[in-house]
Amino acid sequence: MKPLGPIPEGYKAIDGELAIGGRKTSELVETAGRTPLFVYSKDRIASRIVSLRSAMPDRIKINYAIKANPFPALLDFIAPLVDGLDIASGGELELIRNAGIDGSRVSFAGPGKRNEELEAAIRAGVTLNLESENEARRALDIAERTGVQPRLAIRVNPDFELKGSGMKMGGGAKPFGVDAERVPELARTIIEAGCEWRGLHIFTGSQALSAEAVIETQANVLELALRLANEAGVGLPKLNMGGGFGIPYFNGDEPLDIGSVGDALGKLFKRHEQDIAQTEFFIELGRYLVGEAGVYLTRIVDRKESHGETYLVTDGGLHHQLAASGNFGTVVRRNYPLAIATRFEADPVETTNVVGCLCTPLDRLADKAHLPHAEVHDIVAVFCAGAYGASASPSAFLGQGPAAEMLI
Amino acid sequence: MKPLGPIPEGYKAIDGELAIGGRKTSELVETAGRTPLFVYSKDRIASRIVSLRSAMPDRIKINYAIKANPFPALLDFIAPLVDGLDIASGGELELIRNAGIDGSRVSFAGPGKRNEELEAAIRAGVTLNLESENEARRALDIAERTGVQPRLAIRVNPDFELKGSGMKMGGGAKPFGVDAERVPELARTIIEAGCEWRGLHIFTGSQALSAEAVIETQANVLELALRLANEAGVGLPKLNMGGGFGIPYFNGDEPLDIGSVGDALGKLFKRHEQDIAQTEFFIELGRYLVGEAGVYLTRIVDRKESHGETYLVTDGGLHHQLAASGNFGTVVRRNYPLAIATRFEADPVETTNVVGCLCTPLDRLADKAHLPHAEVHDIVAVFCAGAYGASASPSAFLGQGPAAEMLI
Repeated sequence: MKPLGPIPEGYKAIDGELAIGGRKTSELVETAGRTPLFVYSKDRIASRIVSLRSAMPDRIKINYAIKANPFPALLDFIAPLVDGLDIASGGELELIRNAGIDGSRVSFAGPGKRNEELEAAIRAGVTLNLESENEARRALDIAERTGVQPRLAIRVNPDFELKGSGMKMGGGAKPFGVDAERVPELARTIIEAGCEWRGLHIFTGSQALSAEAVIETQANVLELALRLANEAGVGLPKLNMGGGFGIPYFNGDEPLDIGSVGDALGKLFKRHEQDIAQTEFFIELGRYLVGEAGVYLTRIVDRKESHGETYLVTDGGLHHQLAASGNFGTVVRRNYPLAIATRFEADPVETTNVVGCLCTPLDRLADKAHLPHAEVHDIVAVFCAGAYGASASPSAFLGQGPAAEMLI
Repeated sequence: MKPLGPIPEGYKAIDGELAIGGRKTSELVETAGRTPLFVYSKDRIASRIVSLRSAMPDRIKINYAIKANPFPALLDFIAPLVDGLDIASGGELELIRNAGIDGSRVSFAGPGKRNEELEAAIRAGVTLNLESENEARRALDIAERTGVQPRLAIRVNPDFELKGSGMKMGGGAKPFGVDAERVPELARTIIEAGCEWRGLHIFTGSQALSAEAVIETQANVLELALRLANEAGVGLPKLNMGGGFGIPYFNGDEPLDIGSVGDALGKLFKRHEQDIAQTEFFIELGRYLVGEAGVYLTRIVDRKESHGETYLVTDGGLHHQLAASGNFGTVVRRNYPLAIATRFEADPVETTNVVGCLCTPLDRLADKAHLPHAEVHDIVAVFCAGAYGASASPSAFLGQGPAAEMLI
């Protein structure tokens, strides 16, 4: 038997069924008209942002990184609740436009920005987090050609990493940002060229659950930013401190203690009070804001036995839940939090494997999990499905197509 | 330095540039109007099928598993060259219909077939490879309700695996097929129910490069099929022996010796001559037919240094090349075959990293590869991109969208 990940707090049953936003799973599926279905909860997103704001110092602004979940209805909902939005491509800029979000609230990071993307972003008044000297030159050329003053920040490749993070984005050679020692010169160059100087962006890693590691990294980030601005002899109007706040996916994971992170950040700001009087601070979060607000619902289409093992075969799978299947940046597959939604209060009585409908052994949703007895037509819920699910999975694989999505 | 995988034989340069189907890379990109671009070669697909047919015994029929590459133009091209087509979903059935392919040439395997998919397939005259007793009941119910005689085969979960295969689909508990010992009873049940009996389907694994392993497995498959038919007291009108023929992706991989496989299969048929007089034999291949016929072309948008390492940042990445990035069923990432297409004849002079444009450290196309000097605007070619590329990657990730595709 292998453990399942922890179901986020607060999920209750109605008539024995998992309820999301006060509605039973089976009703939600009926409304959507089909499975597989992603359900995202407005309440959960809103309350996550409220508790985050109350934990953080007032001067910290919160950006939403739309790559985590670019579902248009969700974007419309979250945009007024956050201070800014981060994008990673021209495609995401289009989503921002379609949502009627002003470019001045948006910043754009990503190591492979094409000229067309740079131009569209500059024209829209988006802040570019420059990833290299070459990108800076291209942006300045476009600014000159178009006559638009660009808003430019520099993304720094720091010499340190976010310890224990799921993905390290700093510490040593990286394709992201400009190595710290070359930042001062670049900062002077772009300011002299007449751009609107938007400061620094330092992203060190993602999916960290240790408050201690986040606290240490944020202190390093601030000190590095101040040192670089000082060396360059320029101001630091803005500092995007990155994100990295994780959520628990696996057995044994504990939620990040954001109270401690906020307290430490408050003290850090106090310590550097005079140096940062003119600086606006941002953190940039995707998964942390929306990950636990989403549930993926998929119907069981077969229940079968093979050599003493039971398989629940669903109509969903890795084409919508690549990370949960264990095929995205994972070395050893572990089970995500998962339940039989239509028997949410039933006792676990058997060890079963939950698999997707794809004809590949990679398509697993739960291995050797202890679950209530379930039958064909029951609905399986995969939790923590609000981030990097629908948009980060190969939905066209084996001709399946995208899942339905619903914000409630 | 890490080695690159082997470039498939026969790629030549014109004016120093990689040529595909007699046309220079830069011309192909100009025709497509953009990068990233998948180019699939008709000549390579056709000649692969010709050489395969000449190696295999005459009575072996060749099916194309469209999951490997369902690009409509490619499907139109390959359909007349093969004996049948294998699908894995209702979505793939739609592609088959759109290509005007008759359902009688098609078989449908997959562990999570929904009732709608079963009904559509039965109405289209497609052979269902039944994955379980439950699926058989559902198919027979639909047949009774619709009055259409279904074409049914049973997919067997064999007790053995294809040794050395990239993905094992047999040997022990599996979500695929019916455990061998339960097959005879199910065969009798569906024949008694009046279906058109289409025999057995035994798929043991994929991406095998050892002729010895394939030969051993094919012998096991035939013996198992004959034993099960005999135990059931039914005939064996058809046997789909599965696929599993691999292609070399990584340094040190050697092509599968299909001559030996064909010779051994001929001898195997001879040995069982009397038992198999009435049996039609199929092998089912996807990757082997189209994988080496495809090249993924992506343009360099930045060249940068970080802590002594060089990064070529391209406008493509894991959103089209999930497997090449090392994130699909891989434990240890290794480099696919890759080249600077626009400097195909230049000598390798530097160790570089080729990465995609996504803002994630997972997005790698080549690690520490020995390559010619390349600059912004040069085009990178990733080979072996004809199978499980465009359709098996998360193209919506980070708002990027699909690559262009072209059959030449």
